[in-house]
Amino acid sequence: MNEFELIEKLTRSLPTNKSVVVGAGDDCAVLDLGLPDRLLLFKTDAVVEGIHFQKDTPPEKIGHKALARCLSDIAAMAGTPTAALVTIALPKTFDPALIEKIYDGLNTLARQHDVAVVGGETTTNPEHMLISISLLGHVPRGKATLRSGAEVGDAIFVTGELGGSLAGRHLDFLPRLAEARWLAQHFSIHAMMDLSDGLAGDLRHILKASRVGAELLTTAIPISRAAKLMSRAESSAKPPLLAALTDGEDFELLFTVASKDAVPLMDAWKKEFPELPLKCIGKIIAHEGVHLRDQRGVRPFNVHGYAHFS
Amino acid sequence: MNEFELIEKLTRSLPTNKSVVVGAGDDCAVLDLGLPDRLLLFKTDAVVEGIHFQKDTPPEKIGHKALARCLSDIAAMAGTPTAALVTIALPKTFDPALIEKIYDGLNTLARQHDVAVVGGETTTNPEHMLISISLLGHVPRGKATLRSGAEVGDAIFVTGELGGSLAGRHLDFLPRLAEARWLAQHFSIHAMMDLSDGLAGDLRHILKASRVGAELLTTAIPISRAAKLMSRAESSAKPPLLAALTDGEDFELLFTVASKDAVPLMDAWKKEFPELPLKCIGKIIAHEGVHLRDQRGVRPFNVHGYAHFS
Repeated sequence: MNEFELIEKLTRSLPTNKSVVVGAGDDCAVLDLGLPDRLLLFKTDAVVEGIHFQKDTPPEKIGHKALARCLSDIAAMAGTPTAALVTIALPKTFDPALIEKIYDGLNTLARQHDVAVVGGETTTNPEHMLISISLLGHVPRGKATLRSGAEVGDAIFVTGELGGSLAGRHLDFLPRLAEARWLAQHFSIHAMMDLSDGLAGDLRHILKASRVGAELLTTAIPISRAAKLMSRAESSAKPPLLAALTDGEDFELLFTVASKDAVPLMDAWKKEFPELPLKCIGKIIAHEGVHLRDQRGVRPFNVHGYAHFS
Repeated sequence: MNEFELIEKLTRSLPTNKSVVVGAGDDCAVLDLGLPDRLLLFKTDAVVEGIHFQKDTPPEKIGHKALARCLSDIAAMAGTPTAALVTIALPKTFDPALIEKIYDGLNTLARQHDVAVVGGETTTNPEHMLISISLLGHVPRGKATLRSGAEVGDAIFVTGELGGSLAGRHLDFLPRLAEARWLAQHFSIHAMMDLSDGLAGDLRHILKASRVGAELLTTAIPISRAAKLMSRAESSAKPPLLAALTDGEDFELLFTVASKDAVPLMDAWKKEFPELPLKCIGKIIAHEGVHLRDQRGVRPFNVHGYAHFS
């Protein structure tokens, strides 16, 4: 049983109540607590030493990354973050200066997005440092962008460039909060999520939730410079296209809109966010699974994204 | 620098925003998101294998404890819990059946309090299992019971019996949610918190936040049967009174009310909660610190409660 299978089994029988609009399985939980115009977003995300960062990672970047990952999930719902709790579990022989620097990185990013850090906990984790962030946000009623709304014929878009994040970007990426809110405000976004486990694997979550498939045009997939350099530098590295399809921690936005909206959206985007590339990488189809189209034709793509347990 | 000193330093410069009513430093953060009649409560709490539970602890009890600790913090604010997120970090060689049983224990308690489990995360922690719970709750405006409201002359109350929780109670205690809400509804509770690190240490948090001191009557402190048995069984064990003052994980309510309310409160409590002892254990005084009164007179008590780092 891998991580996804275990989670699927567990989430089948979770307790629920009348406040739950969307429970487990999307980028954030969506709750209705009676605010007239808004729903609440609730999310938690952890980074672990040795997996998401290393012993020698600059501590400010650890703090930045821990919060940025969670903010990216609020972005995926087109929401606005409000308040965070920070749990740091660390060995007893910790260095207080290190923890302060982790908070420096985290607090700087929090201030940029008007997020209050309202507490948390410092506890012991005997061998490795672990940081878990809990985030509360909100979204206007009717504007939360779920994974389940993709429709056959939709155009599939992705922001930025993909792959090779491990070369450095995974530590200092910026969550696409303003971009996501702008998208939800100006267009009917059918489905959206943030890319954390790799384009192909994450796209499968949208496809499964929406009961559809996707055809991606390989030449349209934006490949990062880092992915290309890594591929050239090492013969054992992934080919660039495979890196863009399967490398984790891109934290870009993946979304679908009706095909009629594709061109107006692209035009408006270029005016609003001239610095951030946006690419139409394919379309939603009825045939389930991820399919790649290149000069040789169409073939199914079966390499999964990164799974913590496999 | 111990845990409390580090936290104090970090919490001095946390980012804040207009939603924050109470930030770091109380049992829960209190947020105003514009609900007309209520404020939100936001809390996170983690349990770690080897510290809060052991490798051979029944998994249902691990799940129960992880959620119960967090619910106890909502109780400390006289609030009602709504939704939880569950982060489980565990070694790659995990047993799926174990995780399911942890969820069984957690879900059973969640259902008892109408708490929805709306997601979370399963990630890798190489050596030990760690479970972090994130909880969202609410409280009527004006009814949140903070640590900062104790006044000179107040009577100090504690529910249940203290000490010796490690003998078993720490795994199956029940959070005092109904009791706390009843207290806040019927009496003017000046200050309240839940006992997690030991009566003496936790009382100091109320005293510090309220800038007052306390005099406890040693003969009034309710000592658990477990604390008495442990003391009798082992000559190296703490004397029972010391156990009641310093053992962690009691998860009872500690609160203060004006002295004029003490007797009416005690009478009403006995009718409402005949099974759960409530004891007046002393009074709030101007002289800072915790002082013990016994047949020999009054002396300061300086043994701190349990600190994770020391």
